[in-house]
Amino acid sequence: MNDELTNKGAAAREAARLLAKASGHAKNTAIERVADGLARRRSEILAANERDLEAGRQAGLSDALLDRLMLDDDRLSGLAADVRAVATLPDPVGETLDMREMPNGLRVGRRTVPLGVIGAIYESRPNVTVDISALCLKSGNAVILRGGREAAHSNAALAELVRDSLEEAGLPRDAVQRIESTDRALVGHMLTMRGVIDLIIPRGGQELINRVAAEATVPAVTGGVGVCHTYVDRSADVDMAVNIVHNAKVQRPSVCNALDTVLVHSAIAPTYLPRLAEAFGGDGVEARCDRRALSILGPTEALKVSPAEEEDWSTEFLSLTAAVKIVDSLDEALDHIVSYGSGHSEAIVTEDYSAAMRFLDDVDSSAVMVNTSTRFNDGGQFGLGAEVAISTNKMHARGPMGLRELTSYKWVVLGSGQVRL
Amino acid sequence: MNDELTNKGAAAREAARLLAKASGHAKNTAIERVADGLARRRSEILAANERDLEAGRQAGLSDALLDRLMLDDDRLSGLAADVRAVATLPDPVGETLDMREMPNGLRVGRRTVPLGVIGAIYESRPNVTVDISALCLKSGNAVILRGGREAAHSNAALAELVRDSLEEAGLPRDAVQRIESTDRALVGHMLTMRGVIDLIIPRGGQELINRVAAEATVPAVTGGVGVCHTYVDRSADVDMAVNIVHNAKVQRPSVCNALDTVLVHSAIAPTYLPRLAEAFGGDGVEARCDRRALSILGPTEALKVSPAEEEDWSTEFLSLTAAVKIVDSLDEALDHIVSYGSGHSEAIVTEDYSAAMRFLDDVDSSAVMVNTSTRFNDGGQFGLGAEVAISTNKMHARGPMGLRELTSYKWVVLGSGQVRL
Repeated sequence: MNDELTNKGAAAREAARLLAKASGHAKNTAIERVADGLARRRSEILAANERDLEAGRQAGLSDALLDRLMLDDDRLSGLAADVRAVATLPDPVGETLDMREMPNGLRVGRRTVPLGVIGAIYESRPNVTVDISALCLKSGNAVILRGGREAAHSNAALAELVRDSLEEAGLPRDAVQRIESTDRALVGHMLTMRGVIDLIIPRGGQELINRVAAEATVPAVTGGVGVCHTYVDRSADVDMAVNIVHNAKVQRPSVCNALDTVLVHSAIAPTYLPRLAEAFGGDGVEARCDRRALSILGPTEALKVSPAEEEDWSTEFLSLTAAVKIVDSLDEALDHIVSYGSGHSEAIVTEDYSAAMRFLDDVDSSAVMVNTSTRFNDGGQFGLGAEVAISTNKMHARGPMGLRELTSYKWVVLGSGQVRL
Repeated sequence: MNDELTNKGAAAREAARLLAKASGHAKNTAIERVADGLARRRSEILAANERDLEAGRQAGLSDALLDRLMLDDDRLSGLAADVRAVATLPDPVGETLDMREMPNGLRVGRRTVPLGVIGAIYESRPNVTVDISALCLKSGNAVILRGGREAAHSNAALAELVRDSLEEAGLPRDAVQRIESTDRALVGHMLTMRGVIDLIIPRGGQELINRVAAEATVPAVTGGVGVCHTYVDRSADVDMAVNIVHNAKVQRPSVCNALDTVLVHSAIAPTYLPRLAEAFGGDGVEARCDRRALSILGPTEALKVSPAEEEDWSTEFLSLTAAVKIVDSLDEALDHIVSYGSGHSEAIVTEDYSAAMRFLDDVDSSAVMVNTSTRFNDGGQFGLGAEVAISTNKMHARGPMGLRELTSYKWVVLGSGQVRL
């Protein structure tokens, strides 16, 4: 076990005990101080960020990676606004959910409490340092931050801002810990720190997600990978179905709730697919089609079309590519989703009541939708306020995780001398 | 990976998909068939049990272990009654928790769904085979049963009864799988079967609990170990405090929510402890006392008294032994609980409003209680109906886990063509 991790883990644990009892006022004050500090310490933060960018350029990082690493005035202002929004959300801690009186007169309820210590493992974007610290702080959790090595200077400046803000609000600065070591083995240690870390939140690509799944003995959020389907039923309103599928694919293709595969009922395909091709084509979407869809779309100027390979059906494209398949029934669509889906977000477009009900019943994904875009599977859109992650786990929280999902509860029992018979 | 486990895991997974959609009626029919079968197949089950008992006697099992292994008419009737009670509970699956309309007209709610496949790892008591199968079935979950080798014949007879009952109710018999191999390495495989098993429920002693904590990459319930405290405040009603502490220690000393340590405020100790000694003494309780408690209780005929060793403060006695310590303040009591408690069940006895509130706020245990016995930390007593386990985890469920805690949810979204802007 790494010394830095052991020491900072113990400090976070101790601070968590104090933070759990902090008032909503103190927590909001600290969060607002962070937002203020993003402006006040602007030049200091941007100078640290420039050191990371310079090192990144030296190391030959791609433009995409450099862009993710980069902070500027706009991004700092956006971050400050996000942080202030967290301060305005209701405090998720200390709510008693359902206190009832038992036959013997005991009053029994569950009161929300923080989870304790969150371990956040993330990659190049330094704004995660502030973002996740604010959400942890608001929910009364201490956090151990393990950011990417490329962003080390930026993360150090941002984490110090958060720690100073905690102190200014009379809260323990040790509630936010940043791991400095860039040793990759350290992630493995974090994943097994039972009794120190209560929940691991990984924010990163497939490699990180897989590592967490294989190694973590600490509870961890699994998610982020969405092979998302929309099924266009024979009874679908064609205009609506074009609009929804287009939105699900094109509105923001790089995210996990964007559409990957569209399944089209054979009875509607000859009408629907040419219309979809038109809509997709205008945005440069590439379609990977099964044989029958290919025979309808054929070589067309409207759209880049190619035959789908088997692996396309289980691919999260994260780009302007969509797989297209024709099915002969709702059952065939459901079977396809079971075989290839990742349990993230699936939608049906239909005017048939029974088909809608069956889809809702049978599809087992974090969000199951009728006549709308999979892009709505999002904490903000579902009314959770901030979003920490989207979970495809079934344990604890599923789908978008907001502040409430960073809490646990304790049973509170108020008696007047009752004993058990 | 073991072949039996792989095959039965795949069969359970497939059956889980069907069971998730089963009607409440079909599930209850299967559960009632199990209860009927416990009577109808009585002689067959008892004959299988006799084979286990005979093998156990040959192997020199202790009387206590043989008793846990033993089934008879009374135990089978009791088990049948418990199973019938599960059938009468509300179905935890398919409830939509809080559907709301968003500003864009989307209706968004969460609908409860089964977790999928439960892995149950347990030791000698064969009734667990039936008990946990009924709870899994009711909550729409398939289950992989891995019972103790001593109970192999009993478990085989009982699991076949459950599988036959499923089939008679038109449900997939493969929803209940019993692992026959007694290879101990197999438990290690089960603990890492991500994607096949959704939740591990261990029912056993400290060794099993520790193994699960160290090795499981599948989510697992941790619990069962309770070092439970009751703090008798200076303002406590003495009669009430005697009654509550006596109940918490004596009513059923062998269980996890029984009292282990009583902390007594120094101002009330001279009055309280002699009264407690009297109550404890009548039931043969042995007290392990700190120096000051010892000086009050002294050598007494009322009670077996000995000086506490350091390790007594962190011991779950599971017997008629209690540790007794005098503290000078509520703070000292709270610090003691943080240092030595296991986060299971803690109570305060007090007439002081502020002391009660502080105790409820500051103690972070699965149940925190005022003026009542820790023995109430129980699913039945908290109104959950059946209890699957008591969790000291903070993730997913904490404290008593009922049927609802064997479910997850999916987000259900009903639209009318909404797309994301």
